[in-house]
Amino acid sequence: MSHQPNHIHFSLPSWLDSYASTYNPSPSLEARMQFVIGAARRNVEAGSGGPFAAGVFEIESGMLVSLGVNLVVSQQSSILHAEMVAIALAQLKLGAYDLGGSDMPAHELVTSAEPCAMCFGAVPWSGVRHLVAGASTEDAKAIGFDEGPKPQNWIEELESRAIRVTTGVEREAAREVLQLYARTGGHIYNSRKC
Amino acid sequence: MSHQPNHIHFSLPSWLDSYASTYNPSPSLEARMQFVIGAARRNVEAGSGGPFAAGVFEIESGMLVSLGVNLVVSQQSSILHAEMVAIALAQLKLGAYDLGGSDMPAHELVTSAEPCAMCFGAVPWSGVRHLVAGASTEDAKAIGFDEGPKPQNWIEELESRAIRVTTGVEREAAREVLQLYARTGGHIYNSRKC
Repeated sequence: MSHQPNHIHFSLPSWLDSYASTYNPSPSLEARMQFVIGAARRNVEAGSGGPFAAGVFEIESGMLVSLGVNLVVSQQSSILHAEMVAIALAQLKLGAYDLGGSDMPAHELVTSAEPCAMCFGAVPWSGVRHLVAGASTEDAKAIGFDEGPKPQNWIEELESRAIRVTTGVEREAAREVLQLYARTGGHIYNSRKC
Repeated sequence: MSHQPNHIHFSLPSWLDSYASTYNPSPSLEARMQFVIGAARRNVEAGSGGPFAAGVFEIESGMLVSLGVNLVVSQQSSILHAEMVAIALAQLKLGAYDLGGSDMPAHELVTSAEPCAMCFGAVPWSGVRHLVAGASTEDAKAIGFDEGPKPQNWIEELESRAIRVTTGVEREAAREVLQLYARTGGHIYNSRKC
């Protein structure tokens, strides 16, 4: 074949690191979610991707480990949903493919919208112990995003693997970012139904 | 927070590109699968990852677009299943997040084992029109790998999105690589049931 790239390289938006540095660790789930939703809003305003963001936090301390945003269009990669970016960044930073290792604090994934089928499937492998979501699957569908073939009982599936799930945290604020994206003509990609 | 990496970078095994260059385009699914299984075997023998490989091919011409292998442990990233690596490489090479674009030939994903829940969920976003699998979910489970919370009717779910599914292609040869991995003490990661 003609040669493929000899590595996989994705760039992050230039605003992401400075935005991440504004976070103050908080015991409040709502505060963590507001911060994540702020990243989703920035991603839309900067034109760097879809209206989705996700962060990995230490559950106990509230420290932020990583912050990801949707980069599908800007990086030309369908795997770069916000949750995947956040998981990859946290694991690269900690040098561990399992964020649930016995030698580290428990982690949670806070995502501005309920995960699609791919990101749902990625959660058990990531090692996070708690999934926190803002906007609902219906909210994402309402602006044309397809969440894919996720099991109806996805919450039970995670909880049966000892991953707690909390949904609807700051849902209105998260939904507003979805609506902002739709209103400003954001590209709704890959919702092809064939 | 303490700074996260300002990009996402994954290295591929040094043997991968030269192995990929040995492929001769073939109209035969079995030949494509044998080639992919050969990559899974090399990955085990080289100690560069788990016993899984996947390739993206042009359906009509049989040309190989990308070849991925499981890199979870070597790159410390739970998202780096072989299918995800192959999809990411194909999209980077073609500069397109949708391998099903109307301006390109139809693509298929040939994977040495049936996809886990994450990779299953990634397939509809990737744009491939055909999924071809070797070893079964049961074969992977038999050596201790957990395929995660994939819907029972996963094949129908893909086919309802106009993605054809062909399973059991060269299943015995694919299973042998799984068994080789187990026999040689390969690390069965993230099959924690909690």
